[in-house]
Amino acid sequence: MTKNALTYAQNHQAETLADLQALLSIPSISTLPDHANDMQQAAQWLLHKLTAIGLQNVKIMPTPGHPVVYADWLNAASEAPTLLIYGHYDVQPVDPLDEWLTPPFEPTLKGDNIFGRGTSDDKGQLYIHLAAVEAYLKSSGQLPLNIKFLLEGEEESGSVNLEAYVKENQNLLQADAALISDTGIADPDTPVLITSVRGLAYLEITMRGSRQDLHSGMYGGVVENPLNALTRVLASLRDEQGQITIPGFYDKVRTLTSAEREALAQGATTEADILAATGAPALWGEPDFSVAERIGVRPTLDINGLKGGFTGQGAKTVIPAVAMAKISMRLVPDQNAPEIVRLVTDHIRRISPPTMELTIEELSADDWGMVNLSAPALEAAAQAYEQTFGRRPLYRREGGSLPVVAMFNHILDLPVVLMGFGLPDDNLHAPNEKFHLPNFYRGIETAIRYYDIFGG
Amino acid sequence: MTKNALTYAQNHQAETLADLQALLSIPSISTLPDHANDMQQAAQWLLHKLTAIGLQNVKIMPTPGHPVVYADWLNAASEAPTLLIYGHYDVQPVDPLDEWLTPPFEPTLKGDNIFGRGTSDDKGQLYIHLAAVEAYLKSSGQLPLNIKFLLEGEEESGSVNLEAYVKENQNLLQADAALISDTGIADPDTPVLITSVRGLAYLEITMRGSRQDLHSGMYGGVVENPLNALTRVLASLRDEQGQITIPGFYDKVRTLTSAEREALAQGATTEADILAATGAPALWGEPDFSVAERIGVRPTLDINGLKGGFTGQGAKTVIPAVAMAKISMRLVPDQNAPEIVRLVTDHIRRISPPTMELTIEELSADDWGMVNLSAPALEAAAQAYEQTFGRRPLYRREGGSLPVVAMFNHILDLPVVLMGFGLPDDNLHAPNEKFHLPNFYRGIETAIRYYDIFGG
Repeated sequence: MTKNALTYAQNHQAETLADLQALLSIPSISTLPDHANDMQQAAQWLLHKLTAIGLQNVKIMPTPGHPVVYADWLNAASEAPTLLIYGHYDVQPVDPLDEWLTPPFEPTLKGDNIFGRGTSDDKGQLYIHLAAVEAYLKSSGQLPLNIKFLLEGEEESGSVNLEAYVKENQNLLQADAALISDTGIADPDTPVLITSVRGLAYLEITMRGSRQDLHSGMYGGVVENPLNALTRVLASLRDEQGQITIPGFYDKVRTLTSAEREALAQGATTEADILAATGAPALWGEPDFSVAERIGVRPTLDINGLKGGFTGQGAKTVIPAVAMAKISMRLVPDQNAPEIVRLVTDHIRRISPPTMELTIEELSADDWGMVNLSAPALEAAAQAYEQTFGRRPLYRREGGSLPVVAMFNHILDLPVVLMGFGLPDDNLHAPNEKFHLPNFYRGIETAIRYYDIFGG
Repeated sequence: MTKNALTYAQNHQAETLADLQALLSIPSISTLPDHANDMQQAAQWLLHKLTAIGLQNVKIMPTPGHPVVYADWLNAASEAPTLLIYGHYDVQPVDPLDEWLTPPFEPTLKGDNIFGRGTSDDKGQLYIHLAAVEAYLKSSGQLPLNIKFLLEGEEESGSVNLEAYVKENQNLLQADAALISDTGIADPDTPVLITSVRGLAYLEITMRGSRQDLHSGMYGGVVENPLNALTRVLASLRDEQGQITIPGFYDKVRTLTSAEREALAQGATTEADILAATGAPALWGEPDFSVAERIGVRPTLDINGLKGGFTGQGAKTVIPAVAMAKISMRLVPDQNAPEIVRLVTDHIRRISPPTMELTIEELSADDWGMVNLSAPALEAAAQAYEQTFGRRPLYRREGGSLPVVAMFNHILDLPVVLMGFGLPDDNLHAPNEKFHLPNFYRGIETAIRYYDIFGG
């Protein structure tokens, strides 16, 4: 059965790629209200595709935000386990649009890569599993295990409705393990199993200093400028080396054992890798921690966006009425996301000057997640990688956030496997996102083998 | 002759207002390249108007930027002095456009006010002198003194070509005094003569931290975020009370004598005035200086614009590649604008972290200007105000900048009179700019009287 599936997948690469391109062409940006119709269209597209592949019980399940697409195939042999496969069909916004070399929603092949928004995060990786399941069902009419698909539409806007959805559908989602392909590997030949993801707290901060914009000559020096006040408050939240200065912020951060520090150092991303991938003039960060530790096990605080005043060409001497910033924090064990939101919000309220009307809005508060290192579902992934790539995977902690990991851990009590196929230079969340096509096809092969190994 | 002119002006208020509205309808925003044609159109409009009024030698004089419009009338009695009248026909940009209650270039009458960009700064005030001259020439065919008009097109973009123009045209511009109506009075019944203007240094600062936008989960904590770095550098330039921390910045700032402090306190703007005009929750600034001192004789540093990262709706976890800020400093005697630009630029280069590619562009560097308190041209203004408003003017130092004052002082060796008609709540450089119409007509009357008094 598995041999037939592998052969089928290899013989249908062109059709599979064409299907992926169709999905990539839908601008399903979950965070922008203007794209609500595109989100519906992407969900419909998946509904039809999952049905055509031969999945059952295919349905679009509404949430207060964008819907979940669900499908399953539960006809495996009675002793076979059930695998819950998670992916997300929404994508990041595309600005700054003028830095894209090809249109973000016209997927474009160049060399070994396909360029476009969502190619790597996560439509390309999600599609790996659709193609693997299709290969089994079209070649043999069956799968070596039971499969359930949960395809989310709000991962890039903070998965705000996913927790309630998972809680309400615990029976439907019951399984033996969860598998997610939404992470990266070290290089095209070196697979990586992710063993933890960071949490994410996201806030929008607005300061208003006057009823409307003011002339800086008439009022400079007597009316506080919200850009001055906001930059002062934001700058005070961290020292020059990235240490966060908010009282209590680090209180619950676990200290690594020396064994954990050693494990993290194995095959870790090097400073040279990061300089090459980013073009940064120099690296930066907490001096007492290695690069791998700063990415994987240390919390961060970043300004993700800031605007205020006149930013067109030329000079305008204005004191803007309003300035706005978006900030986010990556959180690590044992920090608690809602608690951190309270801590940071209270601190900013305390230090914001009386010259400003302050508004703070919480956009997300998601906990970190951990992988069970002894779960059979994880060892199956290591074997599937090894059979396809010819080497055992590295084990790494991931700097990004996948709120679903904590939800699957805590609500469904499932071991979670993070078996991804992206590359470090895939430009996630940035212009010119791409996916390495050899990884796409190797991903399908790895998925086919995984179902076989975990299915027993 | 003066009586005829006053009567003519009173009988032609409706036509004068219609003419002003035509000029206000031209969106002559000098700082935005898209408006280059509008700038030409405004210059042409003035050319035709000045000619129709009866001025001579009317011409559009090119500069490397937007042109100067020049006109004169030099047929006064042989002992009569020559007055150089300066105004500017360019206006500020209009963003944020959505805060305007009426379209900025469709001048709209509401109650005693006319709303629109440029109504007060400076088309409405410039037009006062066109109407006053027209009143004389149409009613009597002559003026009590010689007049030269210099109408600039780049005041709102830093007057970058004016110095060269004035130097090249010293003979053409020779006069006994210069008169500028581009400032405000205290309230509709209390005229103000401005006795100094501040200088202005304007810089654009860009920091680049990576080749392109990065995922904050993958690179947060190891690659410095330019928004974090830029806010840290900008916040460090001032303390919480507005004291500027750049070494040497205050070295040349003159200490006020107690007599000067007393003079400044006479009829000064109060804290209550500023709170009412701006809607600020609280005032702010250097505690050792009064409000009038902070506006008139203390230098400032303001962030006029800042942008970077994702600022749309929702959450995007990006580390932007680039962040940009516009900052400006108001300068006072005896600070030197080019020297301050060097000082600030060097300081920012010194403190900018090695993780950033830093670019600093100078957008303007203009010196402060002073009025000669004993010039007969100034006393003539006090008398013209008194005859029209029924009271002597207050003398105030102005927080804004008029680079032309220093140029007229130093290049043409002229006493400069700043006799304006704006009000504190005119919303200069902001949405819903307006001009108080009774002041427009009183301005015309004051100008007519001024020409008579100064003409002797």
